[in-house]
Amino acid sequence: MGYINLDNINFKHLVPEASQAMIDAIKAEYGNPSSQHQKGDEAREVLESSRETVARLINAKDPREIVFTSCGTESVNMAVKGLAWARQDKGKHLVTCNTEHNAVIRSLRRLKQLGFQVTSVPVDKYGVVNPQTVKRAIRESTILVTIMHANNEIGTLHPIAEIAAVCREAGVAYHCDAVDSVGTIPIDVEALGIDLLSFASNPFYGPKGVGALYVRRGIGLWNLLDGGAQENRKRAGTENLVGIVGMAAAAKVAMRDMEKRLEHYKNLRRHFLAQLPKYLEDYLINGHPEQCLPNHISLSVRHVEGESIVLMLDEQGFAVSTRSACASGSLRASHVLLSTGLSFADAQGTLVISFGTDTTTQIIDNFLAALAESVKTLRAISPLYAAAQKEKAGK
Amino acid sequence: MGYINLDNINFKHLVPEASQAMIDAIKAEYGNPSSQHQKGDEAREVLESSRETVARLINAKDPREIVFTSCGTESVNMAVKGLAWARQDKGKHLVTCNTEHNAVIRSLRRLKQLGFQVTSVPVDKYGVVNPQTVKRAIRESTILVTIMHANNEIGTLHPIAEIAAVCREAGVAYHCDAVDSVGTIPIDVEALGIDLLSFASNPFYGPKGVGALYVRRGIGLWNLLDGGAQENRKRAGTENLVGIVGMAAAAKVAMRDMEKRLEHYKNLRRHFLAQLPKYLEDYLINGHPEQCLPNHISLSVRHVEGESIVLMLDEQGFAVSTRSACASGSLRASHVLLSTGLSFADAQGTLVISFGTDTTTQIIDNFLAALAESVKTLRAISPLYAAAQKEKAGK
Repeated sequence: MGYINLDNINFKHLVPEASQAMIDAIKAEYGNPSSQHQKGDEAREVLESSRETVARLINAKDPREIVFTSCGTESVNMAVKGLAWARQDKGKHLVTCNTEHNAVIRSLRRLKQLGFQVTSVPVDKYGVVNPQTVKRAIRESTILVTIMHANNEIGTLHPIAEIAAVCREAGVAYHCDAVDSVGTIPIDVEALGIDLLSFASNPFYGPKGVGALYVRRGIGLWNLLDGGAQENRKRAGTENLVGIVGMAAAAKVAMRDMEKRLEHYKNLRRHFLAQLPKYLEDYLINGHPEQCLPNHISLSVRHVEGESIVLMLDEQGFAVSTRSACASGSLRASHVLLSTGLSFADAQGTLVISFGTDTTTQIIDNFLAALAESVKTLRAISPLYAAAQKEKAGK
Repeated sequence: MGYINLDNINFKHLVPEASQAMIDAIKAEYGNPSSQHQKGDEAREVLESSRETVARLINAKDPREIVFTSCGTESVNMAVKGLAWARQDKGKHLVTCNTEHNAVIRSLRRLKQLGFQVTSVPVDKYGVVNPQTVKRAIRESTILVTIMHANNEIGTLHPIAEIAAVCREAGVAYHCDAVDSVGTIPIDVEALGIDLLSFASNPFYGPKGVGALYVRRGIGLWNLLDGGAQENRKRAGTENLVGIVGMAAAAKVAMRDMEKRLEHYKNLRRHFLAQLPKYLEDYLINGHPEQCLPNHISLSVRHVEGESIVLMLDEQGFAVSTRSACASGSLRASHVLLSTGLSFADAQGTLVISFGTDTTTQIIDNFLAALAESVKTLRAISPLYAAAQKEKAGK
């Protein structure tokens, strides 16, 4: 058995269609899509046909509403900062929620340094935002609401159609960070009424370092990257055509296989949760039990450190994570888990297990056995666990 | 004879070493460099070894001074806006010159919308900036000087060592947009004393859509992309590892072959300029005759439209351009050419011919013959040319 990836929220393999498209693009030696001659025409055609495919993935009406970026983080920065600057004369207030990704949190923090005000609304114990809370947070000076779709740490899905409706009614733009949902679950920007949607290629088995921002026609943004006229004047810079071609190929497969993959993920999740009690006790499952990513489980193992479990499982050939890779390097407890009311200790004992197309129930069984072993070893040397056992016995 | 690329300033083929490295990286299925487990470690090693290679290309002392970006334009935006925001409390004045690339011009225009002031200094008839003019433009409130190395339209090289010295003396940060020189001619950020240097991979036969920014230790910037802790906390977002690996492979070849390539380019340029009078009359060569990119010629063909020549040559299988691909879509005359004192009419008749490693003197001879034919055809139907001939005859 090779190394097993149960950290699909942080990295996935490329679908063969994406690798092949990228290799073909490398060999094709495309020109610069902005050039005036034949080599430019050819590159431009590839670029625009990729844009059409990616537009279909989220049901954007016009491919020109898709701007290719270098990652989900760039899309988020472009949406949040770009909208704030473009509308600063109308007002300088933005609304978000407490469990956003660092890309949103830190973009907003930057805007605060430049004189904007931000209201961050709370979530319930499942990590869900109430659209009515968003409505109450909107003021006369509010220009943007930015609330994510799927939370990358607990998998919870926010009611984005309702949030979009609240924004529409209030005349406020709505940005949705959908990096961890686009390509995995169906998203229809037209039906949802979203103004700005950030997404990336790697969460649906495309290459890393490619993303896109959906910008509804009529929504004006200041460019984050100023310069040439690329991307319909919305994002300057020579395009990463190899990556874009890979993203489009992965998008095609995502559309084709979405139902099949969802079914597969749901079976795995059901299996995992059904088997778990046989292997482990004293744990919590975080996030919303139904309104959640089907390939994602946030598990708090009490009285141990999540980091220690990750290291032990790594040695046994299983990749899982304690949180978003983007937050690694930080030793603080997850702001997402604390926002749902989890204790600091339980937050520190949390693992994120995320499935991929190649995960099987057999892999899950093997993983659970390895997890149970690791937890047993760690609890045997844990003073926290000993204290908890003593307390329990005393009761 | 296939399609001939004499528009190398706007697009180049990949060196085989870069394509191979990229294909290998695609097949290797690297993880996320920010992940906590084995797959993350492996990806991180590849990322950091690429950073070391790219640091060597410009003689950066510490690889951590290199931040990978998605293109030269992103590097420029990050440097100019990031420095301006980080130092806005010290002052809000920036200095540039009249012949910069749109990435610099439009980043500065954006800063002006946010309350910054910009002084743009003139260039001489060769398009060269005088360091003493820069010195005189620096005020108490100046925080940044941004002056490019090689001009992409006329090939002129600015005296950046002298400009860096002026900045150093005045205690002002110096950013150099070196997108069109790094990898082609030697650049040593240590010897030159540059604080911020923008460059990209495609100008030295690496992939498009990958760039880097050199940030001297101790120079603080606000992030353009806020979010995770990637790139030593200077640039959030999951890395385009396939592209970065390609950039590093191309950098290695650039270092190995630099002298050989320079010799080759110089021979081609000499040959071109020596042969040109046999094929064409009534033209101008723009830019500095010695302080210039060795693989670049800016040729103003009088009494014809450059766009028309590009189209005719394209049909004959030669790619050349009238200007930067980043400026395409604009019908206005080049601001660079007008800044050197060229007339509007001559600016409109300008072609950029740029050589690559695969250009030969035979190709140049064939090209000059095709050019002469095209110009003859166009002049035969040009009222401007007829008027000019009549005037000449009358004299």
